[in-house]
Amino acid sequence: MGEFELIDRYFSQLGAQRADVVQGVGDDAALLAVPPGQQLVTCVDTLVAGHHFPHDSHADDIGWRALAVNLSDLAAMGATPAWAMLALTMPDVDEEWLEGFAAGFGALAMQHGVALVGGDTTRGPLSISVSLLGLLPTGTALRRSGARPGDLIYVTGWPGDAAAGLALLQGRLQGHGADRGALEFKFRRPEPRVAFGSRLRGIASSCIDVSDGLAADLGRLVAASGVGAVLRAAELPLSRALYALAGEARARDFALGGGDDYELLYTVAPGARQQMFQLAASAGAPACHCIGEVVAGRGVRVLGERGELPIPRGWDHFHA
Amino acid sequence: MGEFELIDRYFSQLGAQRADVVQGVGDDAALLAVPPGQQLVTCVDTLVAGHHFPHDSHADDIGWRALAVNLSDLAAMGATPAWAMLALTMPDVDEEWLEGFAAGFGALAMQHGVALVGGDTTRGPLSISVSLLGLLPTGTALRRSGARPGDLIYVTGWPGDAAAGLALLQGRLQGHGADRGALEFKFRRPEPRVAFGSRLRGIASSCIDVSDGLAADLGRLVAASGVGAVLRAAELPLSRALYALAGEARARDFALGGGDDYELLYTVAPGARQQMFQLAASAGAPACHCIGEVVAGRGVRVLGERGELPIPRGWDHFHA
Repeated sequence: MGEFELIDRYFSQLGAQRADVVQGVGDDAALLAVPPGQQLVTCVDTLVAGHHFPHDSHADDIGWRALAVNLSDLAAMGATPAWAMLALTMPDVDEEWLEGFAAGFGALAMQHGVALVGGDTTRGPLSISVSLLGLLPTGTALRRSGARPGDLIYVTGWPGDAAAGLALLQGRLQGHGADRGALEFKFRRPEPRVAFGSRLRGIASSCIDVSDGLAADLGRLVAASGVGAVLRAAELPLSRALYALAGEARARDFALGGGDDYELLYTVAPGARQQMFQLAASAGAPACHCIGEVVAGRGVRVLGERGELPIPRGWDHFHA
Repeated sequence: MGEFELIDRYFSQLGAQRADVVQGVGDDAALLAVPPGQQLVTCVDTLVAGHHFPHDSHADDIGWRALAVNLSDLAAMGATPAWAMLALTMPDVDEEWLEGFAAGFGALAMQHGVALVGGDTTRGPLSISVSLLGLLPTGTALRRSGARPGDLIYVTGWPGDAAAGLALLQGRLQGHGADRGALEFKFRRPEPRVAFGSRLRGIASSCIDVSDGLAADLGRLVAASGVGAVLRAAELPLSRALYALAGEARARDFALGGGDDYELLYTVAPGARQQMFQLAASAGAPACHCIGEVVAGRGVRVLGERGELPIPRGWDHFHA
């Protein structure tokens, strides 16, 4: 099968159908209508086999992840995703693999109303690069740079679960039963916080997604804001499953240093606290935990019961 | 050096500075202002080492090419390029290589006013995926699908030169001196027809860029338009250098079947011929040659002096 039939078969109709796609897959480029009053938000993320996911990952999990990591970037800006492009490099044409990949990618795309509007397939070692375009009302984007001393620091969900799930898959952590299954699923099928991110517009003073580890990504946020952060170890949300399989100290290391969470980490000014309570209590909101405070200065410190704790190193694609 | 310092050093300020970039490299996603009345045009192309360029290519040539192939896609739509994202996968951090790559990419980006607004660097076998975003007035895009029987078929420049240049680099074609240098340079530094593409809006009835071979890409254009095409072999523009090194028959094969030209192939209705003459005669226009005609039916035929000629196969990333 040639490249072009292949694209036709698996990718020409993937994801949502959108009226603003004037021309999708099938010309030299896609043609898209941007509504007035909206800004464009764009990101790209590449997944390399054996580096961002285990070589033996299911094709549908890889397809899901390739889109999820980008959705998470848009969520962190408060944007609503719209259009994706897929650059897929693979060693050969494996139709069963392609079918699985398209199913995983397509399921998540449908869930978020994303149309696949273009792409490129090439032969080579397996790697997937997705570009995602989204929209938001002009001037409302969440940025990394808005945190101010006194702001409260929140995180959604249960950081560390996905990293523990990967450790289980790789044999670096042992466990069985429902806890193991739950953690592995958190790694295999991250749920980017897209709807919640858009609802944080006007409430959060800054936001970033947790992809490389909570402490490392918080370090980036405070650096961009020119401030520092103090986290309270006792307030870190640790899931029951993570706690059960890893124990408290190791669970905290997973939560602070593990990557692949795709949760949102954000700051809220004291004056917006009431709005934040209401948002957190509203239908469909994920668990949100206040884990510390923005301070003057620089860097991230984690306070335990007996003073400052060491911070596990985050994920760096050229150090990992 | 970590990924983030690396991005900072080489990519945070690459290309043109644009007032419509609200946030470039440095947050979870880029934030871009789309002017009213404009449509967005987007494409992505991946280059894999050893497949889209020889392993021993200069880093600056690779950087140039990674952007050029995408600029050519936007040129074929008549769009004006604006913003690029770069997904770079490389085996290790080689600063000399990065410097060269950034220099080649940056030079072409500056030439076309393109800002690098985002990207991702990962470790793995060398591959480069560029997403390019451009703009054009709503409703003016050149499409593959507008060719009608009776339209004239044009191509810019000297197709086949780049493929011959690659053949010289790979030892499949022999030659020396200025002719060899000229052909190799056409492969190493393709000049996408961006300005000319935008001037074809309102004149061309359809357009595609020649990346996989003139005959193959013309085949795609006529398929999208639901028509056929007849080319006259005697009208194919063959450069003096190509003719000198390859001889007439082989030169014609390079022109019809060779990839990597990044010329524009377009059709013009008989009624727009006068406009086309004026455009071709205007300052800065590339050489434009009428090479055949759109006909009812389907497929591409090439007529020689003694009847129909066989068509060399085009470039297909899963057959090559």
